[in-house]
Amino acid sequence: MAELKDIGVAVLGFGTVGGGVVKTLAEKEALLLERLGLRLVLRGVADLDVESDRGVSVDRSLLTTDARALIEREDVDVVAELIGGTGAARELVLHALKLGKPVVTANKKLLAEHGPELHKVAAQYGAELLFEASVGGGIPIIKALREGLVANQINSMYGILNGTCNYILTRMEEEGLSFDEVLAAAQAAGYAEAEPSLDIDGHDTAHKAAVLAALAYGGSVPLDNIQVTGIRGMAAADITYAAKMGYRIKLLAIIRNCAEGVEVSVQPTLVERRHPLATVLGVYNAVLVHGDVVGTTLYYGRGAGRMATASAVVADLADAALNLRAGGHRRDLSAVPERAPVVFREPGGIVARHYVRFSMKDRPGTLAKVAAVLGAHGIGIDSVMQQEGPENAEYVPVLFVTSQASERAMAEALAEIEGLEDVIDQKPVRYRIENSA
Amino acid sequence: MAELKDIGVAVLGFGTVGGGVVKTLAEKEALLLERLGLRLVLRGVADLDVESDRGVSVDRSLLTTDARALIEREDVDVVAELIGGTGAARELVLHALKLGKPVVTANKKLLAEHGPELHKVAAQYGAELLFEASVGGGIPIIKALREGLVANQINSMYGILNGTCNYILTRMEEEGLSFDEVLAAAQAAGYAEAEPSLDIDGHDTAHKAAVLAALAYGGSVPLDNIQVTGIRGMAAADITYAAKMGYRIKLLAIIRNCAEGVEVSVQPTLVERRHPLATVLGVYNAVLVHGDVVGTTLYYGRGAGRMATASAVVADLADAALNLRAGGHRRDLSAVPERAPVVFREPGGIVARHYVRFSMKDRPGTLAKVAAVLGAHGIGIDSVMQQEGPENAEYVPVLFVTSQASERAMAEALAEIEGLEDVIDQKPVRYRIENSA
Repeated sequence: MAELKDIGVAVLGFGTVGGGVVKTLAEKEALLLERLGLRLVLRGVADLDVESDRGVSVDRSLLTTDARALIEREDVDVVAELIGGTGAARELVLHALKLGKPVVTANKKLLAEHGPELHKVAAQYGAELLFEASVGGGIPIIKALREGLVANQINSMYGILNGTCNYILTRMEEEGLSFDEVLAAAQAAGYAEAEPSLDIDGHDTAHKAAVLAALAYGGSVPLDNIQVTGIRGMAAADITYAAKMGYRIKLLAIIRNCAEGVEVSVQPTLVERRHPLATVLGVYNAVLVHGDVVGTTLYYGRGAGRMATASAVVADLADAALNLRAGGHRRDLSAVPERAPVVFREPGGIVARHYVRFSMKDRPGTLAKVAAVLGAHGIGIDSVMQQEGPENAEYVPVLFVTSQASERAMAEALAEIEGLEDVIDQKPVRYRIENSA
Repeated sequence: MAELKDIGVAVLGFGTVGGGVVKTLAEKEALLLERLGLRLVLRGVADLDVESDRGVSVDRSLLTTDARALIEREDVDVVAELIGGTGAARELVLHALKLGKPVVTANKKLLAEHGPELHKVAAQYGAELLFEASVGGGIPIIKALREGLVANQINSMYGILNGTCNYILTRMEEEGLSFDEVLAAAQAAGYAEAEPSLDIDGHDTAHKAAVLAALAYGGSVPLDNIQVTGIRGMAAADITYAAKMGYRIKLLAIIRNCAEGVEVSVQPTLVERRHPLATVLGVYNAVLVHGDVVGTTLYYGRGAGRMATASAVVADLADAALNLRAGGHRRDLSAVPERAPVVFREPGGIVARHYVRFSMKDRPGTLAKVAAVLGAHGIGIDSVMQQEGPENAEYVPVLFVTSQASERAMAEALAEIEGLEDVIDQKPVRYRIENSA
């Protein structure tokens, strides 16, 4: 037990995160040796491209294009999968697990789409699968949920999980800019991809929500059961109106254990200015966790980026190494248990308050027509605020705040209002409201 | 290894936290069995008083007044020390460790005053000492530092670590009440002790700061090297002035790794309204941690209370139990290493910006005299704001914001200003300012 001092690490993928891990392992070797009593030794880095400069110094002899051979080496004890995607990454993770080698991954898409398969193979071959870096970048949220809050049933989690979206929303609010202007600036600054849909349409957040939900409730979340709305094309006006009402708009992953099942959704949401998530600005991420014993806790940090993500990957490598030294896993994989199947709530049943902006004909009786449709669908109205339109405008913005109403009722009511003649001239804008802190 | 399914737990101290732990172990037995693959079985609860009703149902046969005998029982594997103080608690913790039994404690005072002794005995007898509940109640901050951020050198930590103080400051700001009014209300509501000095004079925060500093930097922090200023008697006026300037006043533990040594201090501090710690309100605690790899992270939750603290104690019991099953500790105690001795900075050398309020004679030339003394001590002035006093008042409030200045220079300059004739009529009020986020 004491002689296994060197733990051999294979890094798959020499991109941004892989480079950060290689750099951290090199720079922190002495610190990790002191803290862990063992050495994490890089045995090799596999990538299809072993020629490009990654801005990280690494002995060329460590680079290889043959990931499978690297995984199979006898002196490789732990594998870090930092390739991304669900093709080669999935195959290589399965290959390592089947050799009984623990795998550390930052790949939320892989976990969201193939989590049950991976966990099953891991259990079958007695290999550990760790994924701290898959949600919230450097924030140790997975460890907090699995270990720090082990005595808690999780009542709910509210997460700001995509730095690109939060950066865009923050700049739109602070500088009064349009969505398109800020997106272009974010792309220029490297905070957003040239093809930004994974981020701004909410899919990346949905993958992370699925990982969190599976961790808290077990089983696998059918991605179809996640209602996903992104921030693409959000109007600056709604951010301004929300601010006037004391709210900020955030793209939230919401995971809640309700009587009817576990709700998992991703939506732009108005949160009160005092809400702990309202002050999470720029590229930062945060997760608000309500446990039934501990009450409310929150975890905050950089949700992406080379070094923040590397911090989480190396922490997982350290855990895997210590477990190997101890001769087995410390946590059973039942931390992601296959329990009595958890029911994930179908999106239409999700109940919340809503902010709705209509562009409404400025004529007596119009508002009454809209209110009547909402009422007919059982949707209560908490407040109505007509906003100034341009002078002599035919249509003016009118803001409704509803009481609790189901997703289905809201969708049906708004569709009916859109069908009314001479009432509104644009599709209504609708966002969720969360007051709970 | 697989047969050790039951881990026997002894709880020492049947007070608020002890009762919460007993309750949690009973209510979460099935959940913990599912997540950990083992059962945490309560073997006994020791307290001098086994008659009072603690609001927790427990089999009377489990209660005992003989803590030592309970610790020594063969079927007790792990000991939770929830007595508090440094008398019996210290002796019993040492007794358990010397029997090789892991100890979980929530006792920050014990750790702050006797940490090195306890860690040494723990290492000597191969027993684990866990203390998640000693700082930040239910927040898994110790685990985050030891494990989640294992790859990081900690550059600094800023903590709101005392719920009583934060509750008082929050109500003073929100309701414009005086310190004495809010303290009395907090005492009536059970948020403050009848003898509140441990909280409001900053000593409880200092104990927690010492625990965090020892964890991050090793060694033991001489409590004399912690500059401690509490919030007793804080004037409502300063909270109002700070708010006008865009700040909130928080009692902060500040731990910083500077070139000259590690700074550890506890002081009322002005933080910008946008600062992540500014929105930590009421009885909540939070710790902002800057790691050299991960960047800024923050951990937030209830810093005290029966159930929040129990959540942390049970998480430690789970870790200890898993480690016992694995046949040893997972983390070397070198996570609190005895390294080359860390230098803790002497308080006079600590450098910061300051808010100073003078009650200054309203006469030409007075301000110049004050400014001259500050200048003579090398203290730059960033801004000066004279406030309205009562009509025809002889003395008016004047606020100074200084640039970076040492604690020593500030103390000397203010003493000199107090000695000037006919310039001020009250002791100047001075608080630190922190802008860094």
